[in-house]
Amino acid sequence: MQKVEHIGIAVYTLEKAIPLYERLLNTPCYKKELVESEQVLTAFFQQGHTKIELLEATGENSAIKRFLDKKGEGLHHIAFEVEDIHAEMARLRREGFTLLNETPKQGADHKLICFVHPKDTHGVLIELCQEIR
Amino acid sequence: MQKVEHIGIAVYTLEKAIPLYERLLNTPCYKKELVESEQVLTAFFQQGHTKIELLEATGENSAIKRFLDKKGEGLHHIAFEVEDIHAEMARLRREGFTLLNETPKQGADHKLICFVHPKDTHGVLIELCQEIR
Repeated sequence: MQKVEHIGIAVYTLEKAIPLYERLLNTPCYKKELVESEQVLTAFFQQGHTKIELLEATGENSAIKRFLDKKGEGLHHIAFEVEDIHAEMARLRREGFTLLNETPKQGADHKLICFVHPKDTHGVLIELCQEIR
Repeated sequence: MQKVEHIGIAVYTLEKAIPLYERLLNTPCYKKELVESEQVLTAFFQQGHTKIELLEATGENSAIKRFLDKKGEGLHHIAFEVEDIHAEMARLRREGFTLLNETPKQGADHKLICFVHPKDTHGVLIELCQEIR
């Protein structure tokens, strides 16, 4: 793990949440990106070395839709940047953590990603992400 | 807002959570601190420019105790570092945000802190924090 790359927040609609977070953080949303494979529309804000990522579900099979149905809006995950996602996944498996995907998958923002099961991390959904080189 | 200073995670016991987060983050817990006024025991990990703060309740009137009773363990808050907490509180009030304290209070890690009501931020508890100079 190198740094907190971003913090993911589940919201019902970006249309409402983006202008509010622009006022809250006092910085503009600099990018929106659809991740079709995850059925999620994302919006990014920069805060120092870390990004805030708002997440809106775009389909019934979206993990964000299930999260919102169960828990409502709020903090969804922390993403840590890693240098080599395969090596970090292997390290975490050796340490006994359950990974939610066997191999890295394509995420937003030109990244390879993998999630760690929140049952192993005191309820926190952790994402590993590595820049695609 | 300048950067994400830390991310707060509510846990039942630091005794279990600290060794697990040391393995997860691959870095040692570098500090534990009791914040008596908040009835909370904290443990810190550094990740790049951001800290991860684990929070254990030490009394029945702790906000962390209420959070754990209602939602269980998990992500609790994001803290943004600000240069001047009084100026940032005034800015947020002008923007229509509800603050959970009238004046800054003393937090962990030698900080003045203030919380923004999660009803105004799509369910996310936001902390402002300023280094005490």
